[in-house]
Order: sequence, then C-alpha cells, then structure tokens
Amino acid sequence: MKQIMVKKNILDTNDQIAKTNRDLLKEKSIFAINMLGSPGAGKTSVLEQLIKGLKSDVNMAVIEGDLYTTKDADRIESHGIDVIQVNTGGGCHLDASMIQTSFEHLDIEGLDFLVVENVGNLVCPASYDLSEDMKVTVLSVTEGNDKPLKYPAMFQKSELLIVNKVDLLPHTNFCMDELYEDIKSLNKDMKVLEVSCTTGQGIPELMDYFSNEIQTKKGE
Amino acid sequence: MKQIMVKKNILDTNDQIAKTNRDLLKEKSIFAINMLGSPGAGKTSVLEQLIKGLKSDVNMAVIEGDLYTTKDADRIESHGIDVIQVNTGGGCHLDASMIQTSFEHLDIEGLDFLVVENVGNLVCPASYDLSEDMKVTVLSVTEGNDKPLKYPAMFQKSELLIVNKVDLLPHTNFCMDELYEDIKSLNKDMKVLEVSCTTGQGIPELMDYFSNEIQTKKGE
Repeated sequence: MKQIMVKKNILDTNDQIAKTNRDLLKEKSIFAINMLGSPGAGKTSVLEQLIKGLKSDVNMAVIEGDLYTTKDADRIESHGIDVIQVNTGGGCHLDASMIQTSFEHLDIEGLDFLVVENVGNLVCPASYDLSEDMKVTVLSVTEGNDKPLKYPAMFQKSELLIVNKVDLLPHTNFCMDELYEDIKSLNKDMKVLEVSCTTGQGIPELMDYFSNEIQTKKGE
Repeated sequence: MKQIMVKKNILDTNDQIAKTNRDLLKEKSIFAINMLGSPGAGKTSVLEQLIKGLKSDVNMAVIEGDLYTTKDADRIESHGIDVIQVNTGGGCHLDASMIQTSFEHLDIEGLDFLVVENVGNLVCPASYDLSEDMKVTVLSVTEGNDKPLKYPAMFQKSELLIVNKVDLLPHTNFCMDELYEDIKSLNKDMKVLEVSCTTGQGIPELMDYFSNEIQTKKGE
C-alpha cells in the first residue's frame, strides 16, 4: 500500500482537474465510482464484497480516503487488491487533485474498475467531482429512513443507492416504503439495491449491476 | 417552532462570537451542550429521552441544526419543548453566529439547560465552538468501534461519549473493549455511557449525569 499526504493546489479548480482525470479514465476504458455515505454505513464492507465477487474477472484498484488512518485500506489490501491510501489530514472530503495525485502512484494500464471510497460524511463530499462515472451512496438501515430528505444533495447526485445492513431491519423502525417514496421525489432515476454484507442478501444483484457497467464502459 | 435561515457574518470570527454567547450563558447560569455524531447515530432519540426524563424538573430549550428540513425539530417540539430550527442551507456544521441568532428568538430567562443538536457529521462540527459547556458525541454501535480512531477530533474534544443502540450489540461485530481502549488513548478523561433508547438501558445514568451538570452550573 502507498500512502499519500495531500496538499491542495488552490490555483486549479476541482472541476478542471476532474476533467483531466476523466479524459484519462475514458482513454483507458476504466469504469470509476465514488462511494459515499455516513461513517459506519458499511462502504468498506460493501467494497470487500465487490472485490470478492469481481476480482477473478475484473482488474480492480481502490483509492481509500480517510482523515488519518489506514484502517480501511488495510482491510482492502488484505484481499490482494492495489490500494492507494489518501489521508486528508482532517479534511472532510476527497477532491479531484487527490485522485490525480493517486494516479501517479497507481498502475492504471489494464485496469477495468476503479473504486474511490470517500471520507465518511453525508454532506461535504457531495460537492466534489472526483472524475467518477457514477456516485454510489451507501445508506445503512440503522441510520433511519429520514436521511435522504435530511441530506438531499448526496442522494440527488448519486445514480445508485445501496441500502445496506437489511438483515437488521427487524430491529429498527426503518420504513422501506417511505425510503422509496423519498428517493422517487429526490431522484426518480436512482437505482436502489438492498443488500446485507452479513447474510449476502442482494450481493449477486450488486455484482451483476457493476459487471454490466464495467462491460459497458469497455465497449464505449 | 421558529425557523431561521442563516447567513454567516464573515467579519466576526467564530471564537469571538462564541465568547459573547458563553458570557451570556454564564450570566444566566444555563448549562449548554453541543450534541455531535454521524447521521443516524441517534442524537435526536437520545435528546427525546433527555427531555422526557428532565422536563418536569428542568427548564429546557433546544436548537436544532439541519441542512434543510425541520424533521428533528418537529420531533422535539412534539414533547412541548421550545425549539429553534437552524437551517444551514446545505452547510455541514453549525457555528457560533447561528447560536447568537437563535438567542434572539429564544426566551432564555429562567432556562436551565440548552441543547444544541448539530448537523449529522463526524468531521466538520468538531472545529466550531458553539459556546457550549460541553461537547457530547453520540456513537451508535452499528457504526463500528473503529470510528474514534478514524475521526479523532470529535472524540478528543468531547467530554462525554454516549454509546447508543447497545441493544443491537449482538447483531454487530462492535467490540466494546477496543472502543474503551481507543477512547483511553485519545481522551483519557472522557466519560462513556452506554445506552439504548429502545430498551431504556443506561437512560437513568444519563439523566443523573446531566442533572448533576445542570445543578453544578446553577451553583457556580
């Protein structure tokens, strides 16, 4: 694992850098996602499931955002996947310049799928384009079904919502019908997949979803 | 309920305003807390328990931070408590100027206990002094015990950690021993209380804790 301490280049705007990154990802036909969600929503657990299911067929790499630690990156690296740790030094989100810096340390030739796991935060990361093809939000049922309306930007800007920890539904007052209703009102095109990393529920559908997206990007 | 749209005064620094607020709270012997935690940690649920247990003996008011909605303030108001809704318009934290503005809309004469519920975010709110006597972080066991080391500022700056949803412990891999060890390494003076708003576990101890703090402030 490589670890990078980031200093932001305040002269370049995020969107300009994101465009440069995006052109490179397009040239190399790499499908890239930006994984978002609250602390503890289960982003790393979902990512571990994706790695287990896809790594035999798909060349994957991960960029892990974290304030200070390498805890998540250590988990990912244990699966034998290339991982770049970006420590923000307390910063509340990743930005495109951090992704650009990561590219200098990552062998992107032959890569099919790049996952950027953002800092756990349901507010700030929504504002930063990281050059991804798709923002993916992970929401755990233990957080409550009121989160989309309370933190709308994240849900409006994501194409996929992964509703995680559905095995815990019987122990919560989470109302799935209200969730779907709220998502429809915020982002009617949003795809919703219900999963449990503990029981495996919904994981095959998640694999199919990303396999298709990766293949589509290859074919473009 | 009064609802305030906030514009930040960029000329005054947060700390200056926080000092002015703090002097006023001291003059009126009002004990004030700043409740922090991830989205879905259960800040509002803990607050509802506090209100139920304390409102017959203590004159309470609440300032509710939220990006756009009044969802939490509606819950609090249903308990017959004065509540000021501060909508940050997408902003990721409250600041001292928002508290100052709230004071213009709140009858603070005779108040014993002021609770500020911050925006759900384990990063940004840690940096802003809101004039509180005490920062209180709520962490739910479903978030995982790795959160203090991953988001250290919040835990270093809080005096009390409320570990919420302990009824769900058997369904998670949360390790309480590791949590206590990590808290000790970050903030050895931090008080930790384990609670469940569903079963009521630990709620009497929480009431005692805050009753004592409120009385101490009155006696100063």
